Amino acid sequence: MTPELEKLFEFLRFPSISTDAAHAGDVKACAEWLVKTAEELGLSAQLHETPGHPVVIAQNEHQDGRPNVLIYGHYDVQPVDPLNLWDSSPFEPEIRGEKIWARGATDNKGQMLAHLLGAGRTLREKGDLPVNLTFLFEGEEEIGSPSLAPFLRENRELLKCDVIAVSDTGMVAPGMPTLGYGLRGITCGEVVVKGPTKDLHSGIFGGAVANPAAALARLITSLHDEDGKIMIDGFYDDVEPLKDWEREMWAKVPGVGTDDYLEVTGAPSLFGEAGYSAAEQTWARPTAEVNGMGSGYQGPGSKTVLPAEAMAKFSFRLVPQQDPKDIIAKVEAHLKKHCPPGVTIEFTPGHDGKPYHADPHAVFGKAAQRALKKAFGKDPVLIREGGSIPIIEDFRTILGADTLLLGLALADAQIHSPNENFPVENFEAGIRLNQALLQELADS
Amino acid sequence: MTPELEKLFEFLRFPSISTDAAHAGDVKACAEWLVKTAEELGLSAQLHETPGHPVVIAQNEHQDGRPNVLIYGHYDVQPVDPLNLWDSSPFEPEIRGEKIWARGATDNKGQMLAHLLGAGRTLREKGDLPVNLTFLFEGEEEIGSPSLAPFLRENRELLKCDVIAVSDTGMVAPGMPTLGYGLRGITCGEVVVKGPTKDLHSGIFGGAVANPAAALARLITSLHDEDGKIMIDGFYDDVEPLKDWEREMWAKVPGVGTDDYLEVTGAPSLFGEAGYSAAEQTWARPTAEVNGMGSGYQGPGSKTVLPAEAMAKFSFRLVPQQDPKDIIAKVEAHLKKHCPPGVTIEFTPGHDGKPYHADPHAVFGKAAQRALKKAFGKDPVLIREGGSIPIIEDFRTILGADTLLLGLALADAQIHSPNENFPVENFEAGIRLNQALLQELADS
Repeated sequence: MTPELEKLFEFLRFPSISTDAAHAGDVKACAEWLVKTAEELGLSAQLHETPGHPVVIAQNEHQDGRPNVLIYGHYDVQPVDPLNLWDSSPFEPEIRGEKIWARGATDNKGQMLAHLLGAGRTLREKGDLPVNLTFLFEGEEEIGSPSLAPFLRENRELLKCDVIAVSDTGMVAPGMPTLGYGLRGITCGEVVVKGPTKDLHSGIFGGAVANPAAALARLITSLHDEDGKIMIDGFYDDVEPLKDWEREMWAKVPGVGTDDYLEVTGAPSLFGEAGYSAAEQTWARPTAEVNGMGSGYQGPGSKTVLPAEAMAKFSFRLVPQQDPKDIIAKVEAHLKKHCPPGVTIEFTPGHDGKPYHADPHAVFGKAAQRALKKAFGKDPVLIREGGSIPIIEDFRTILGADTLLLGLALADAQIHSPNENFPVENFEAGIRLNQALLQELADS
Repeated sequence: MTPELEKLFEFLRFPSISTDAAHAGDVKACAEWLVKTAEELGLSAQLHETPGHPVVIAQNEHQDGRPNVLIYGHYDVQPVDPLNLWDSSPFEPEIRGEKIWARGATDNKGQMLAHLLGAGRTLREKGDLPVNLTFLFEGEEEIGSPSLAPFLRENRELLKCDVIAVSDTGMVAPGMPTLGYGLRGITCGEVVVKGPTKDLHSGIFGGAVANPAAALARLITSLHDEDGKIMIDGFYDDVEPLKDWEREMWAKVPGVGTDDYLEVTGAPSLFGEAGYSAAEQTWARPTAEVNGMGSGYQGPGSKTVLPAEAMAKFSFRLVPQQDPKDIIAKVEAHLKKHCPPGVTIEFTPGHDGKPYHADPHAVFGKAAQRALKKAFGKDPVLIREGGSIPIIEDFRTILGADTLLLGLALADAQIHSPNENFPVENFEAGIRLNQALLQELADS
């Protein structure tokens, strides 16, 4: 095992589960290990306390005239339940086949440590880095990064940067270098449909009193037409059309929309907005999803009630230039306008985050493409991501820099699930990628 | 307090909760008390063991040439949870205002004991009854009467009858005598809509994979048009149209569909199949109700999953001459025909029971009308019931007799809920009703 893999194994052994107060000490110990490791590599590093888990900053010696590059990662991990579905202990990493198996192997310890060790390797080989580098590692990503935006605001000078790089997203297929230049935004809400004040006998009252579950179903159905188009007034008003080059490139991207993709999801067939490919549907088109719904009796057998109320939780993935506040207002107006007779509705907006989009053909985007080609030996694909990473928009707003999304996660990485894994090759490629990236950014 | 009220209080003190094994002894003791009480009144009575709780039979001495009358009731009661919502202890009956407050006061101890004591009063006053009377009291009504149909089949001779009377339904308003001559049937089913094999990340996959909750909503919505009409092919094929006399009489019935009714339900407004009144909708028109549904994340806050599946429980109230097996087959065909793309469905039929309907203008119906007028001093209304009492259909099938539904339960009786109550006047009226009924049946 290489010394770099040994370092990764050390890192993976910390059960740094940020959501579980019982693991707060492990999170802290993991942060301290990061400080020590960065220092051993030749960087200066400090642990910064926050109201939650610590932030770790590591930097080389900055010099005038070099680009300022910030690399972000997170050292906290998801919980491991259900433990019995793991084939090996989540915090005792092991290599089976050509993969590292452990909680955090992909998300995000493997990816972030590759960057740190890449900088270490360059320092070892050349005694210097070609850029002014700042690593920003947080321990609260899996709980929504509550301390990060305040930390960014309070440390603008320390964190000043021209460009940001993050490896916490996906690559479209093994060995296929992937540059992400967009993320969908999100806005959420919950609706409660209220009918009678208590569950009624469906025999005595059924037929004369509206059924809140059926009314909610009608509301949900009103959100889409049969071809998957969203029917909320004005929902698409600010959606930027796909560019021709995007549609052409995405048509060649492996993975998304193929039989493999079907196998990963287990869905019987794909279904989405007519006129768009699966890649286009998930990366560049907005959605209206039901994340949960409930009404009446859900236990075994039957209970013939007419339920008093019904609830649904929605999330809407947004694309440039949709605004979350504007969209959630349109959603609420739609639900109120379509409220069926005999019930009332209450709507509560939830959290949100703006969509993100940067030009992959700008100077730093081109540098990232060259670095990806160097590290993987082939031209990268340029994609957007379907998910939402609100901190990327915070980086732009607070630090004023765009983010290069250099994902190393594969579709079968099982992040957030039992048997999380990361190919050894992706770890090695991540180290090479960091070296190439810093050089290309310096040369651009 | 009258001796008859004292008897009712004794009866109500038994916590004869049939669903709770811990109360099996109380159920048995209650049955034994019934045997003793019937004997004290001058009837012969026996306790019959069943695989579940006992059946009690009480009879006068039968003579040739008299009509054979069977009166059914149940001495078991619903559980009392949540106990903290009761204003007085459920098994320590008391009179407050003009009502008796206790579990079982209306459902069914108050109503059934009025019949037994009515027969006792006639025996006391006249030394004889005008009919051959058989009381059939079961202790399993609240758990679906599993032992009753077998008992009927094994005791056809003992239970032979020309007509059956039951007081276990509603009267439309206080003091308004009510003859029920129909019940809706029922058929139930559950559908599971399946999409991906596990909950998916709604950012990564949302847009390209069908959402089972939205698909289920579309299926539920397909069951009705916007005017509340059921859209299942052939659903109304066998529905008997309302008779003119029914529509005329029901238009005058108090309670159903009025502001009082709205207040009882707490619904913001009424809604049902266009073209029918609330009474017609609940008594003579079939329904398709969602009794429960569930999908995805239903806890606090948000979890932005694309759910793997969604479930709904349905019940369909049926009217003459709809057949439950035919209807559930049509439901299944409808759901399969309307299954949206990208998901599969699994359908499981549930329990069922046929609708019941008898002619209230036949000989025994007319006798019941005269008896109700005698007991209450005004002409009765003739109604059907929206609920389903499968044993009534069993009586017809196994014993070959129609049932007169002589309901004494008021809308605010709180049956199955805390603070169950029964007006003292309804108890007294029930005793008078039994006396008048037996005489009118004898004279008819």
